[in-house]
Amino acid sequence: MPLDLDSRDSGFEAAFAGLLGAKRETQEDVQNAVSAILADVRQRGDAAVLDYTARFDRVTLTAGTMRVAPEEVDGAVASIDPGLLDSLEIAAARIEDFHRRQKPEALSYTDGAGVRLGARWTAVGSVGLYVPGGTAAYPSSVLMNALPAKVAGVERVTMVVPTPDGKLNPLVLAAARLAGVDEIYRIGGAQAVGALAYGTETIRPVDKIVGPGNAYVAAAKRQVFGTVGIDMIAGPSEILVVADGANDPAWIAADLLSQAEHDTSAQAILITDDSGFAEAVKRAVDGHLKTLPRAAIAGESWREHGAVIVVSHLDEAVPLVDRLAPEHLELAVADPDALAARIRNAGAIFLGRHTPEAIGDYVAGPNHVLPTARSARFSSGLNLLDFMKRTTLVGCDPGSLGAIGPAAVALAEAEGLGAHALSVSIRLNGAPR
Amino acid sequence: MPLDLDSRDSGFEAAFAGLLGAKRETQEDVQNAVSAILADVRQRGDAAVLDYTARFDRVTLTAGTMRVAPEEVDGAVASIDPGLLDSLEIAAARIEDFHRRQKPEALSYTDGAGVRLGARWTAVGSVGLYVPGGTAAYPSSVLMNALPAKVAGVERVTMVVPTPDGKLNPLVLAAARLAGVDEIYRIGGAQAVGALAYGTETIRPVDKIVGPGNAYVAAAKRQVFGTVGIDMIAGPSEILVVADGANDPAWIAADLLSQAEHDTSAQAILITDDSGFAEAVKRAVDGHLKTLPRAAIAGESWREHGAVIVVSHLDEAVPLVDRLAPEHLELAVADPDALAARIRNAGAIFLGRHTPEAIGDYVAGPNHVLPTARSARFSSGLNLLDFMKRTTLVGCDPGSLGAIGPAAVALAEAEGLGAHALSVSIRLNGAPR
Repeated sequence: MPLDLDSRDSGFEAAFAGLLGAKRETQEDVQNAVSAILADVRQRGDAAVLDYTARFDRVTLTAGTMRVAPEEVDGAVASIDPGLLDSLEIAAARIEDFHRRQKPEALSYTDGAGVRLGARWTAVGSVGLYVPGGTAAYPSSVLMNALPAKVAGVERVTMVVPTPDGKLNPLVLAAARLAGVDEIYRIGGAQAVGALAYGTETIRPVDKIVGPGNAYVAAAKRQVFGTVGIDMIAGPSEILVVADGANDPAWIAADLLSQAEHDTSAQAILITDDSGFAEAVKRAVDGHLKTLPRAAIAGESWREHGAVIVVSHLDEAVPLVDRLAPEHLELAVADPDALAARIRNAGAIFLGRHTPEAIGDYVAGPNHVLPTARSARFSSGLNLLDFMKRTTLVGCDPGSLGAIGPAAVALAEAEGLGAHALSVSIRLNGAPR
Repeated sequence: MPLDLDSRDSGFEAAFAGLLGAKRETQEDVQNAVSAILADVRQRGDAAVLDYTARFDRVTLTAGTMRVAPEEVDGAVASIDPGLLDSLEIAAARIEDFHRRQKPEALSYTDGAGVRLGARWTAVGSVGLYVPGGTAAYPSSVLMNALPAKVAGVERVTMVVPTPDGKLNPLVLAAARLAGVDEIYRIGGAQAVGALAYGTETIRPVDKIVGPGNAYVAAAKRQVFGTVGIDMIAGPSEILVVADGANDPAWIAADLLSQAEHDTSAQAILITDDSGFAEAVKRAVDGHLKTLPRAAIAGESWREHGAVIVVSHLDEAVPLVDRLAPEHLELAVADPDALAARIRNAGAIFLGRHTPEAIGDYVAGPNHVLPTARSARFSSGLNLLDFMKRTTLVGCDPGSLGAIGPAAVALAEAEGLGAHALSVSIRLNGAPR
């Protein structure tokens, strides 16, 4: 059964702190296995990648067949129901539009001392996109990871996707085509991460690797970090719904289950000021679980990690939300904007009774790659800036260096850094005596 | 002697690739020692922090004396030469001004389908700033790390600085006061990182930890990442100077040494189209090394990791710069802006003959915490956004959910996520039959 908490109970603070601190993930220790694979890929290139693919994915490839040919993508696109393809196109267009509005502006000015100052953003040169194979091959993830890269101006987006037993989801290929992915290789696991980071005879190395994966992929990304950039390492999904008693319990129950069905380690939490409503939602969850295809997973997540928190007043929800710092926050209340304005920590907020979180997973526009495990306290969802980097600019002439240089010399000398001081003073005064 | 390369030599590409791939850092393996310290701090709190401080810093503190009292900061400020204090104030004002111009804008609009969309930035709640003790206690680093946090709106900035044998640099305290640091504790090492991440009876935990430190501090930051956010883990400093023959060799030599003097692992590289100038710079480096206080460090860095690359034409420098992706790039050429516009990868660019890199270390305004080890290919220098995070917002009403919901239902069903589909369809059609 999900955890039942009531803010009026004397043990509430301790129980809530326990909920905050609970570990949901059991991490496999795959460090050593991954290190060995990465070292092998770095040394043997294609040959190593092909060997591991044969072993782990049971697929025999060559350097020539590793890459998915454009004709194969054409075929995949042609095989998809036109209505479904339309839906994918609607999603792509909306995601692209939202991300296009995030283009950062360059800064450029000359200040009072005559110093020219600025900052400019440029796209990362090349990005590798990891897409899981099998049942977790989500076309929506391809759109959410690849489109921001392309909108940012990344010149080369290289996708890798394992094809266990040769199976490849045509919708994933269609999403890659829609998103403008430049190259697709049918490889996965730590060997694919190694190929993207170090390059092989066939696959050129990239500057940054993004996308979700299993424990091996996550460990490989951590290990190649530094050689390349990586995105966040996402944990199991979470939803926090703040709802008053005026909602339909069946709607809110469906929302809770929409994240619970991702993974038995996922977490769905309801905060409400109406204890009768709380009970009705729990009953509705049980009702939905009788018919949902992923009821086994969703049910286990709900029983093991779910929670229903009853508060005296929804005002009390605000500090609880900020402490939970949820990946997804639904505000199913009469005035969601007023409540949202008071929230500090959340990856994404869904406003009002008619905005189920799942709308954001597919078609709303904002990214569905969001900070998990309370990291919304200090980090953001995937966005355009993750595919760009910033260079600052400074330009002095003799006059402006004369104005600000002496302060730099004084501070450099105070820090005992003589060459720093000299590099400024030599321009102010000529060579030292 | 520094490496001599000439782009016209047949072995140039291999030699340049060797320079790119060369490891300069020897990493101490302190993982296990750090894990033990962190676990102890997590369990025993203040008592553990005080024990390690007595052992490593040879200072006996109590929970009461761990914190630096405001009167002690007053005394430090009063002890500083007024001219030097002025220089620190000039630096602080300029850094604050530059970072204030980076405030990101919120996004808020209603699209054609009637969906309300937006994104907003909020400050991280609390930040811990690590400041190294002893000779590496740089007041400029305090300004560069603390001011952006305060400009971003971080409510609580907690600084930790070890005081080996009880010594504390008054300029560091003055910089903390100027930057608006809220609390200062005289502790350091992995134990201080643990105190900031987990909290103790005396020190409240923070949301994110920034600032430079030794191998123990870097390992501790890596290990607490996830519990809190961290900034980048900086490697040894680098400077790349692109200079034509019209420069004063003594100026360019001073610039190269200004980064070489940081650390024997630092790297200074000159690219020039004038081989006679290259020789003159090398002679000028040797000349400066006769008088500089940190000549031993700077000389070793220059001999072991320095390089002078002669190219036929400065156009050839552009791809070399992008491959090196330097932390600091000086363009000491006739038209630095034109050259800068063609560079993709650099942490900070210093434009023209009168802009020594060191001006950016102290008073120019942009941050001096910049990506090292070629990571400018995919990451940026410290900036306001490192102290903020972004929350996206979506709001549908029945009409707009009706417009975009069916596509979400189709995609959710294609991905086999029934509860996702249900959470949308139940609002469109009512409960399923």
